[in-house]
Amino acid sequence: MRPRTTQELLDASTPADWRRPDPASTLYMELEGGRVVIELAPDFAPEHVANIRTLAKEGFWDGLTIYRSQDNFVVQFGDITGEGEAPKPIGGARAALPAEFSRPIEGLAFHALPDRDGWAPETGFAGGFPAARDPAEGQAWMAHCYGTLGAGRDMAADSSNGTELYVVIGQAPRQLDRNITQVGRVLHGMELLSVVPRGTGPLGFHEDPSQRVPIKAVRLASEVPETERTDLQVLRTDTPLFDAVVESRRNRRDDWYLRPAGHIDLCNIAVPVRVVD
Amino acid sequence: MRPRTTQELLDASTPADWRRPDPASTLYMELEGGRVVIELAPDFAPEHVANIRTLAKEGFWDGLTIYRSQDNFVVQFGDITGEGEAPKPIGGARAALPAEFSRPIEGLAFHALPDRDGWAPETGFAGGFPAARDPAEGQAWMAHCYGTLGAGRDMAADSSNGTELYVVIGQAPRQLDRNITQVGRVLHGMELLSVVPRGTGPLGFHEDPSQRVPIKAVRLASEVPETERTDLQVLRTDTPLFDAVVESRRNRRDDWYLRPAGHIDLCNIAVPVRVVD
Repeated sequence: MRPRTTQELLDASTPADWRRPDPASTLYMELEGGRVVIELAPDFAPEHVANIRTLAKEGFWDGLTIYRSQDNFVVQFGDITGEGEAPKPIGGARAALPAEFSRPIEGLAFHALPDRDGWAPETGFAGGFPAARDPAEGQAWMAHCYGTLGAGRDMAADSSNGTELYVVIGQAPRQLDRNITQVGRVLHGMELLSVVPRGTGPLGFHEDPSQRVPIKAVRLASEVPETERTDLQVLRTDTPLFDAVVESRRNRRDDWYLRPAGHIDLCNIAVPVRVVD
Repeated sequence: MRPRTTQELLDASTPADWRRPDPASTLYMELEGGRVVIELAPDFAPEHVANIRTLAKEGFWDGLTIYRSQDNFVVQFGDITGEGEAPKPIGGARAALPAEFSRPIEGLAFHALPDRDGWAPETGFAGGFPAARDPAEGQAWMAHCYGTLGAGRDMAADSSNGTELYVVIGQAPRQLDRNITQVGRVLHGMELLSVVPRGTGPLGFHEDPSQRVPIKAVRLASEVPETERTDLQVLRTDTPLFDAVVESRRNRRDDWYLRPAGHIDLCNIAVPVRVVD
């Protein structure tokens, strides 16, 4: 019998193979084109996630913009203030936070991949997030993959506070791992961010404010009436089914592929997400 | 003395560090938004490139469309014929070609990277293209990186003829390596392709023809008057300067990075391209 394809595996999944993200760790970013759903990662960046929850509850991003779109790298949003303009007040949020580039291995369930990786001694998934760890240093961190949400910073390691956020829209920039605080991952609606016209300024900034993409609102799902929520299920990454799904991507067995790769990079694994009607 | 940054290295480059792509192997794709410049790879896919030259000379793609945009994967263009419609005639081009998934190692100058790769025994650059090879099998091939141009095929390995072409717009789909014929790489104007709104049909096809992106023309640069050409220079990939540039990306030494990665994946290396005014 030939191995099952990804779709066949998903078709045979049971409810226990899926999880519903915690609404208190889920952001809805409302754009003209629709809703982007983001899962926050308190296990990796508890201080940043706490601040982001406060910022979302207080409507910090409402009326702000996506002001940067750099091809094959990131889109970035938040409060871009022009010269002489006052920054938007951050209300009850904290202005300064510690850097949260990595965390101790202890206490973090980690589902390792057997595949080799050039950037880290071990890669795998933790809490559904693509991640890596170094047993010698005793540290684990989220890996920068397509759809990763991170907290922009300036030169100082502790200069991010979660107001300025970026999403990876290109080849996984793993060189950023352990150099910046990652706070979550886009689960749904990525195609609304990835097509934002690239900025023509340095680093893809939209120098002409008219090019920026307005953000109608960013809210925590837990603050949105249940009837207005997007009911998502995400495939669990710590199950035998997930291992089988990864294997079906590592070695494609459909009729089209002539040569299975025998390998997969962490960031080539798209964790299945489905919308429940 | 600290190592030089990428920009400092490029600023110190000499004319011999750069090359001008052969106009007879350069395609201009003219869109409403501007020009995409593509370099063809006759060393990897001579039969496909010969056919593509014929198709371009005869204006095959003029008036056709980009009809597929799949998030984190590819855009695809060519002749999408609806049910009951006759396909566009291919003129002097050949309807059938051999598969050109890889080629012998012999006769191909290959500049290897020291970095580990999960997909192939060796990676590096050949003729400016990201590539890989397997000495045991004696074969070399282009690697699917961001901006790679490939020839769409159906189930049969030899079912591509170069009329339907795709460009990678997401995480490097290296699982396609050695499963399909690659024919070139986008050198300039990638941001015109990467923002094409994603198709809502299966595999990102634009089912509604009004969503497709019109192609004004695809021409060989050698068929365009010199005054209308885009004068590009591409950094050579077989020089000490290129090695230094790669090292400057492998281990970032600017003030922002706190932890140099000590590694770089083949597809994280963007070969510098500059427009000569």
